[in-house]
Amino acid sequence: MKGHVLIKKLLLTGATGSMGTAIRPLLAALAETVVVSGRRDITDLMPHEESRKASLDSADDVLRAVDGCDAIIHLGGYSVEGPFHPIMQANILGLYNIYEAARANGMPRILFASSNHVVGYHPQAEVLDNTALPRPDSLYGVSKVFGEALARFYFEKFGQQTAILRIGSCFDKPVDHRMLSTWLSYRDFVAFARAAFTVPVLGCPIVYGASANDRSFWDNSKSNYLGWQPQDNAEAYLAEVLQAVPNPDPNDPLHLFQGGKFTDIPILKEGNHD
Amino acid sequence: MKGHVLIKKLLLTGATGSMGTAIRPLLAALAETVVVSGRRDITDLMPHEESRKASLDSADDVLRAVDGCDAIIHLGGYSVEGPFHPIMQANILGLYNIYEAARANGMPRILFASSNHVVGYHPQAEVLDNTALPRPDSLYGVSKVFGEALARFYFEKFGQQTAILRIGSCFDKPVDHRMLSTWLSYRDFVAFARAAFTVPVLGCPIVYGASANDRSFWDNSKSNYLGWQPQDNAEAYLAEVLQAVPNPDPNDPLHLFQGGKFTDIPILKEGNHD
Amino acid sequence: MKGHVLIKKLLLTGATGSMGTAIRPLLAALAETVVVSGRRDITDLMPHEESRKASLDSADDVLRAVDGCDAIIHLGGYSVEGPFHPIMQANILGLYNIYEAARANGMPRILFASSNHVVGYHPQAEVLDNTALPRPDSLYGVSKVFGEALARFYFEKFGQQTAILRIGSCFDKPVDHRMLSTWLSYRDFVAFARAAFTVPVLGCPIVYGASANDRSFWDNSKSNYLGWQPQDNAEAYLAEVLQAVPNPDPNDPLHLFQGGKFTDIPILKEGNHD
Amino acid sequence: MKGHVLIKKLLLTGATGSMGTAIRPLLAALAETVVVSGRRDITDLMPHEESRKASLDSADDVLRAVDGCDAIIHLGGYSVEGPFHPIMQANILGLYNIYEAARANGMPRILFASSNHVVGYHPQAEVLDNTALPRPDSLYGVSKVFGEALARFYFEKFGQQTAILRIGSCFDKPVDHRMLSTWLSYRDFVAFARAAFTVPVLGCPIVYGASANDRSFWDNSKSNYLGWQPQDNAEAYLAEVLQAVPNPDPNDPLHLFQGGKFTDIPILKEGNHD
Amino acid sequence: MKGHVLIKKLLLTGATGSMGTAIRPLLAALAETVVVSGRRDITDLMPHEESRKASLDSADDVLRAVDGCDAIIHLGGYSVEGPFHPIMQANILGLYNIYEAARANGMPRILFASSNHVVGYHPQAEVLDNTALPRPDSLYGVSKVFGEALARFYFEKFGQQTAILRIGSCFDKPVDHRMLSTWLSYRDFVAFARAAFTVPVLGCPIVYGASANDRSFWDNSKSNYLGWQPQDNAEAYLAEVLQAVPNPDPNDPLHLFQGGKFTDIPILKEGNHD
Amino acid sequence: MKGHVLIKKLLLTGATGSMGTAIRPLLAALAETVVVSGRRDITDLMPHEESRKASLDSADDVLRAVDGCDAIIHLGGYSVEGPFHPIMQANILGLYNIYEAARANGMPRILFASSNHVVGYHPQAEVLDNTALPRPDSLYGVSKVFGEALARFYFEKFGQQTAILRIGSCFDKPVDHRMLSTWLSYRDFVAFARAAFTVPVLGCPIVYGASANDRSFWDNSKSNYLGWQPQDNAEAYLAEVLQAVPNPDPNDPLHLFQGGKFTDIPILKEGNHD
Repeated sequence: MKGHVLIKKLLLTGATGSMGTAIRPLLAALAETVVVSGRRDITDLMPHEESRKASLDSADDVLRAVDGCDAIIHLGGYSVEGPFHPIMQANILGLYNIYEAARANGMPRILFASSNHVVGYHPQAEVLDNTALPRPDSLYGVSKVFGEALARFYFEKFGQQTAILRIGSCFDKPVDHRMLSTWLSYRDFVAFARAAFTVPVLGCPIVYGASANDRSFWDNSKSNYLGWQPQDNAEAYLAEVLQAVPNPDPNDPLHLFQGGKFTDIPILKEGNHD
Repeated sequence: MKGHVLIKKLLLTGATGSMGTAIRPLLAALAETVVVSGRRDITDLMPHEESRKASLDSADDVLRAVDGCDAIIHLGGYSVEGPFHPIMQANILGLYNIYEAARANGMPRILFASSNHVVGYHPQAEVLDNTALPRPDSLYGVSKVFGEALARFYFEKFGQQTAILRIGSCFDKPVDHRMLSTWLSYRDFVAFARAAFTVPVLGCPIVYGASANDRSFWDNSKSNYLGWQPQDNAEAYLAEVLQAVPNPDPNDPLHLFQGGKFTDIPILKEGNHD
Repeated sequence: MKGHVLIKKLLLTGATGSMGTAIRPLLAALAETVVVSGRRDITDLMPHEESRKASLDSADDVLRAVDGCDAIIHLGGYSVEGPFHPIMQANILGLYNIYEAARANGMPRILFASSNHVVGYHPQAEVLDNTALPRPDSLYGVSKVFGEALARFYFEKFGQQTAILRIGSCFDKPVDHRMLSTWLSYRDFVAFARAAFTVPVLGCPIVYGASANDRSFWDNSKSNYLGWQPQDNAEAYLAEVLQAVPNPDPNDPLHLFQGGKFTDIPILKEGNHD
Repeated sequence: MKGHVLIKKLLLTGATGSMGTAIRPLLAALAETVVVSGRRDITDLMPHEESRKASLDSADDVLRAVDGCDAIIHLGGYSVEGPFHPIMQANILGLYNIYEAARANGMPRILFASSNHVVGYHPQAEVLDNTALPRPDSLYGVSKVFGEALARFYFEKFGQQTAILRIGSCFDKPVDHRMLSTWLSYRDFVAFARAAFTVPVLGCPIVYGASANDRSFWDNSKSNYLGWQPQDNAEAYLAEVLQAVPNPDPNDPLHLFQGGKFTDIPILKEGNHD
Repeated sequence: MKGHVLIKKLLLTGATGSMGTAIRPLLAALAETVVVSGRRDITDLMPHEESRKASLDSADDVLRAVDGCDAIIHLGGYSVEGPFHPIMQANILGLYNIYEAARANGMPRILFASSNHVVGYHPQAEVLDNTALPRPDSLYGVSKVFGEALARFYFEKFGQQTAILRIGSCFDKPVDHRMLSTWLSYRDFVAFARAAFTVPVLGCPIVYGASANDRSFWDNSKSNYLGWQPQDNAEAYLAEVLQAVPNPDPNDPLHLFQGGKFTDIPILKEGNHD
Repeated sequence: MKGHVLIKKLLLTGATGSMGTAIRPLLAALAETVVVSGRRDITDLMPHEESRKASLDSADDVLRAVDGCDAIIHLGGYSVEGPFHPIMQANILGLYNIYEAARANGMPRILFASSNHVVGYHPQAEVLDNTALPRPDSLYGVSKVFGEALARFYFEKFGQQTAILRIGSCFDKPVDHRMLSTWLSYRDFVAFARAAFTVPVLGCPIVYGASANDRSFWDNSKSNYLGWQPQDNAEAYLAEVLQAVPNPDPNDPLHLFQGGKFTDIPILKEGNHD
């Protein structure tokens, strides 16, 4: 099926990041025009794309990026652990700028890329649903708790609808045992975006972003009304993972908590990052 | 598979209504004889059918209808919003008559057609299981809360077993976005009846009556012991629904609460109904 | 403390019943005028009282009783097990009449006398809060489930506020072991009415109506925002109860379920009642 | 796929029992060597097998059986209701011996065959997850509650990892209506063992041991992180079961509680067993 | 108030232990005769007492001790961590003997002294109610999980009623910071026994045995129907505790888990105990 | 009782605010020296006080303020709704500075003044415990969600202990109906600080900061282990409140949600604030 195109202009922030780059080709199925936005200008535009460079900590940049869009996929900002200041500028001030720009533009729906790292200190031997208490594993994770709270606040006060997706591991394919649980394929991500943008009433749900993995840590049954049915299953890559990592070390931080190695990163200072 | 016929005489009330009419042909697989009952005499009888006209508010009529039956599908009564008095006669007094008649007839199992309208004021952006608190959206919905309570009372006091099915939208096919969540196909309904009548011990479970829809609002995992596995999925009709309703209005009452348009109906008085 | 009188005209239905008679003298502290209403005319009026005879199944009677009142204590109707028809007339049709009359009169707050018999089949060795599932023990209890659902429906649809009080045993004093758990003193009842009528926003809470009994089956912590703090404790009457019933029989239905002897009453027919 | 063999030496206790005998041929896929252990010597060894006779109540026997093994499937002990003393020797003292031997041998992972009889007094019309309270239906069931607690204790104090499998009915195929809910196929059991032994971090989960039966009483979603996906479904044997038992008696203890007939067995004394 | 004496003959096991010795003088208020039983003969009998020496692992001894009693306080058995074998003999075989003896004697009510050590691995910074999962901290704690399960089994199968009291620290007074949370005064213990033996229907509740301590880890609201209202509060001893332990060490195992120092005891072997 | 002084040097941030000013005199009972810190120098020092001016957004200032302190009461930062930038500087960057300074100083315990505005969009007719989902009512409330998440992160990663107090209304006395539910007296606040600083193990609990008010919206039973027993009750001021506000308007935002008027404040921009 070709798919139903409801969106005229879709903004994709973080379009220059690796996940943004990977999903760009798939977004043509969602919208007539995709505004791709990042900190750098994007020059390899596809016919349906338009580039709007923006630094998230600039309210003006963000306002220009959002202008005229009727849906937003917000991948932009810091997506790994780092020093506090740039995380704050990108993920906290930057997110406030996104929501204010959306409010000034008729409140298009937002798909907010939150992260499993908001619940990263829950053990892997536990299955979470969307009532799990936040246990962030990093300053990055804390910034995403802020983001989820900001989304909720705009929903309660103004009716701004957001799909909060706590993304697991969105890569080409799973490459270690943890990703057998946390992997999210690109096409399952895009299917989620379609569901979030086309369901008549979205609300402000929290959903875990993983494919239909046999070993998932997460239970999305409470947001089933969205109708998102992921199609991929990391288990298909089991043989590859076992070849790469035949004997996973049970004491490796990768396996203790849901956030994996993030729980093992110290506080980074701006000097010692990079 | 032809199916295992355990039931000698099955009573179908509400047999002249649209749902009753639609499922009649499917009931031959469940029972040797189907007693079809409604407020009008039924003349287009199939070979396995027998007609017993009954007005639910007449204890005598109901007693005659139930006589000798070893299972009851109770669709009868008011099935939409209406003025209070006829709802009370049909759904409250009428149900009492059904349970008293069943008690006088060896307590055949009852499939009671309750309704999603008992929980109609829960938002659509919420997934319910059978512990959800009643939030009826209509006098009709209130009458079904009564019915569920009456069924429970007869179960606790006398051991009368009832399958309470909170029917979503039982029609040929889904025709709007809400029905993508709430649709129940006729054959899934009949499969439910089979499960309810053949499981060795039924109890008095509350089950949501929807097919295996991708977008279901409802979680039946707590009644899984019945073994009911619906086969249809409203999503198969997505293209048709989108063609009919390309841009559903998010402010339409149809989409705000689970009960859809019922939440928007005023109290009807007998004069202004019809 | 003398108490703050906010209510100009308070309607008391069921004023000729034993509970109504007992609380009448205490209501002067709540309202300037108390309209006392029952199926009989009341002639022993106190200076602040006014009598309005009404049969609950008469919409006109009820409309006249409610007229001009800014608060309602609805004790009226059948308050014990009985045949179905009169219960339906008084507790089902009668309650609908009350809510319609309230809607026509600016929606004064209602204190609805529900009953522990809506949860009467829960065992006594279990402590319930207001999320307990209904397990009515009698046709009377089923009628009260209807009443709670009707109250909820008018709250959701019209904003009508009701305090649903699942009354335990409202008598002079506890006289058996079950009442050591379920007793509600008259002054604690009236204190509840004051709380319900004066809290700025009431909502539609379900509260168990028992004094601060050591042995209470019920936990009202989820409606604590009302500020109701019952003062009496059935345990003060322990010696008296033990003198009357030194050796309670553990197999007596009085002690098995929360509803006590109601669980042991058969279905009553109109002929055999009285 | 051939399957990934991580285990060098796997101990199977209870290898002479009927379930042990049935799964022995399937264990070659899990381990290089399988140490088969029971109260009798096993002589029909397959090439990958080694026999170590052991009486569970002998600490020395058990130590010898466990020596050098890097995984344990503990089926040994009493697996039906019986007199207390031999159950205590086999399932209580015997299990302590297993855990002490494991502790002395580097704490290989243990798959502990617990039983649905630890929750046998829950009604069949109820779906349980792993937070259900223990309601054992037999001395045997009580001994398994002990076993689960011992496993948990060794996990908390020493980090010993155990997969607790509350086995339903592990037989060739389901032969009555209860087994349509509780059946566990041999290959699904072995797939569970593989999952438990290969997941990087196991923890000490409680899992219900049933195949993917339509009518399952049990919900394993809280241990989904293990990635166990049973393949069989008892419903495939429905026709056979119906032929054998066309009209199951609803008052048969087989159908009232999850533990089936175990709830109907009296306390057995050593004299009257056999 | 003198107290209502319902019990003719009350058995106290463990009467020679320190807790048994301390409560003996208080039991005259509960029963006409108190049978004091322990592994040694008791010679300092009070007028209302009778001595019956019994070794719990002897079914005959236990039968003689229980003979003719209409209530049992079972404190007997191992009450601290120890080697497995004697714990099994006293707390597992011994408890089975108690329940079989009770069954042979008309099933007098039993107050079973369970222990906080069944949930000893829950952190102190957590408040538990009686649905908390078992996390025993010792072989002793595991034996008490067995005991609770056995009590439950006899309740489900035979109707034997037991009050399961998870005793915290039953001593003269609290002497360290943990006991400010866990202390149970002797008189509060005896008040609990009175409640358990006199409530018309007891059931088989799990209750935490602590006085009304400001810092309690435990919430007994789910067993409130018993009417037990402890009177003492460990906080009254705060000054004494602070004088003895002015600076409690936060890394002391005493303070990490609810079980305190028990979590820090290794497995004891019979040779190294004593 | 004079009180036990365990703390040598206690830091109070926000000491120049109204709440800080009010509690300063009470802190002498908690610590030998109180370091009072705010954006202005404090000159009216009491003998046990020492002043350290600090701007929270300056890491150096904060490090100097925390230096040598063994406990921190962190009231500093924005405590009302305002424009985003200064809230971010004070409550987000400022809090990060506090936690980093604490980490550099041996991790003294922190009492973090969070706010009821993190759950401000829950209705007043609902009682919350500490598992309630965040529903912030203001940018201020969102900044406090960030703060709670940061506290949790430092607890999980480094073991930094924090008492998170969601303060209701900490003023001299309640002055409107909402404060009858939310009032926290100064002495109850200080008693909470004492409990948090002296309990052997604190953890990272979330506690609602209200006195023992009859009408509290909040249930702190899950943090009962702290032993905090507030002494005051807003109800003592009922007469005063009623005199000031005899007829509270039920449609006033003050009464709809727990956050009161905060839910009615628009997004403030820096230009239009002040």
